[in-house]
Amino acid sequence: MLAETLAAIRPADPRALAEARAHQDRLTKPKGSLGALEEVAVRLAGAAGVCPPPMPEPAVLAIFAADHGVHASGVTPWPQEVTVQMVANFLSGGGVANAFAAQAGVSVTVVDVGVAADLPDAPALVKRKIAYGTADLSKGPAMTVDQAARAIEAGIEVARDLVAQGARCLITGDMGIANTTASAALVAAFTGADPAEVTGRGTGVDDATYERKVGVVREALRVNGVTRAGSEASDALRVLAAVGGFEHAAIAGYILGGAAARVPVILDGVIAGAAALAAAALDPAAVDHCLAGHRSAEPGHTVALTALGLHPLVDLELRLGEGTGGLLAHPLVCAAVRVMHEVATFDSAGVTEKPV
Amino acid sequence: MLAETLAAIRPADPRALAEARAHQDRLTKPKGSLGALEEVAVRLAGAAGVCPPPMPEPAVLAIFAADHGVHASGVTPWPQEVTVQMVANFLSGGGVANAFAAQAGVSVTVVDVGVAADLPDAPALVKRKIAYGTADLSKGPAMTVDQAARAIEAGIEVARDLVAQGARCLITGDMGIANTTASAALVAAFTGADPAEVTGRGTGVDDATYERKVGVVREALRVNGVTRAGSEASDALRVLAAVGGFEHAAIAGYILGGAAARVPVILDGVIAGAAALAAAALDPAAVDHCLAGHRSAEPGHTVALTALGLHPLVDLELRLGEGTGGLLAHPLVCAAVRVMHEVATFDSAGVTEKPV
Repeated sequence: MLAETLAAIRPADPRALAEARAHQDRLTKPKGSLGALEEVAVRLAGAAGVCPPPMPEPAVLAIFAADHGVHASGVTPWPQEVTVQMVANFLSGGGVANAFAAQAGVSVTVVDVGVAADLPDAPALVKRKIAYGTADLSKGPAMTVDQAARAIEAGIEVARDLVAQGARCLITGDMGIANTTASAALVAAFTGADPAEVTGRGTGVDDATYERKVGVVREALRVNGVTRAGSEASDALRVLAAVGGFEHAAIAGYILGGAAARVPVILDGVIAGAAALAAAALDPAAVDHCLAGHRSAEPGHTVALTALGLHPLVDLELRLGEGTGGLLAHPLVCAAVRVMHEVATFDSAGVTEKPV
Repeated sequence: MLAETLAAIRPADPRALAEARAHQDRLTKPKGSLGALEEVAVRLAGAAGVCPPPMPEPAVLAIFAADHGVHASGVTPWPQEVTVQMVANFLSGGGVANAFAAQAGVSVTVVDVGVAADLPDAPALVKRKIAYGTADLSKGPAMTVDQAARAIEAGIEVARDLVAQGARCLITGDMGIANTTASAALVAAFTGADPAEVTGRGTGVDDATYERKVGVVREALRVNGVTRAGSEASDALRVLAAVGGFEHAAIAGYILGGAAARVPVILDGVIAGAAALAAAALDPAAVDHCLAGHRSAEPGHTVALTALGLHPLVDLELRLGEGTGGLLAHPLVCAAVRVMHEVATFDSAGVTEKPV
């Protein structure tokens, strides 16, 4: 399924990109006056292969949840059971992601790809558990390569199913206590950045825990023999398995699945950024179908975005995850695309153009 | 009416501010993890005097349109008739502001406070014309003090009427060819910044026009004897009249009207920022009821926001005006407030808190 998905991914269409740029300049606004939003609309035209691009509605947020063996190494003050408690909170509509999704008119799906507990059935829960959490990445591989591949396939299938049900925009979300540690390790591995440069305080760790967290990331790279990932897809999979999490692998698959369906993917924060690096290592063209929803307060996120060549739409020092930053960006993306559909041209509106 | 409005404005309520901060910390998210959005919700609680603050919906965008005598001094390549053409474009739904408003579910009102042409009646047009454009601010006062006061009152009445019709959030918008020149003069006057520091390229001027524009702003301050405005309200009115525009005065009134009604005002770009400086000079407490929708590419806007102590929500290099930046911010503001209404607390959701 992974090979088939990768084979279906097309890079941005140059003709649609050029057509979108030309259309922007005919609209009743000074050239370039919509700043970064013009590029969003152009990018989505290229990704869809048509100008104007389809409105990215309806949108769906998929929150991929999993636990992490590295929790045992003391990288966060939060108890591991908060993962399963927050999954229950999302399923009963009480999370920040639920409030943001309700505001944006986005539906929410929770996918268990590796929570360390059995979860009761719920209408919004998709059960694709690979294992009860990963192994401790600072002691050896977090996942086997087979597990990572199965998590990627789970993400691809979630994307496929959501698109089949009508989704025209996919937003990434995550839940997993300790998952900023795995994210830092992935970002370091895929970009070559030093662990100290990409490790942050996550949802709030003190100085001692922070120092330990940097050391854990460094040890994870060492013990797994991960220096910097090569460009081979097989190597990407090995790196992802060694220092990632089930939700990272699943989000990478979700991105690839969206890209294969030519449905845009709005990335949330550092977990999504780390997953996108894995997806890009598997197929660089997948990035053409992604937008960076926001820039999180985690330093590794900025490193990931720079490596991906993506510019965040929202930059408000959020550090929550769940998909909250992606959800905030969704109305901005819709606004950017709506301009291409609805705004008058100088000709049609009888507005005088600026003399050249 | 101005005196009555100023008398009704209350500063942020300290009890509601404290209650909102405490409530944020009980919600199922790490403390501070919503970054700047936490402060938005807290600020609106203080402005409304109640926690949680009311949802800022429905919202209305009022686009205040006017022409500028300084156009004759060659500060922009756009012909003056574009103001009236764009008003027609807004009224027929073809502007970028219309597309953004439709996306955000915001209604649009256009207020003629000084367009240099007679406008036909239209359902969304409010006619409050003070004159057919201002005088050239680089040759003497742009408006008489009486005209400026009447424009302020027009803005107050628009705010009052919209609130009476159910608006629970007011968004500022503007249309007026050459109005970034008047904005630069106002920002320089109210902050003491040098004209070169606050004058920008507006909707796109070349180097020669830019140099002329800076000189015009400098001359406007000199000829009108405006160095730096004092704190007296009467002086604020004189400065506004001398170097402002009808839309600046009306937007200042609109801000004061919103503040008096305890309905939050989302400011758009540099025109709104300049108007907010005038409103703040009339009553500093008015700023407690304002949010900065975005940071425009105009340098004077950043200077104005700093002086106002406001942090922009959207920062995407827009330089269009019309209210477009304020409209993009509206869903973010709604999301911030919705969190206060809908997100579970650690207690209610049975989620374990981080040990202290």
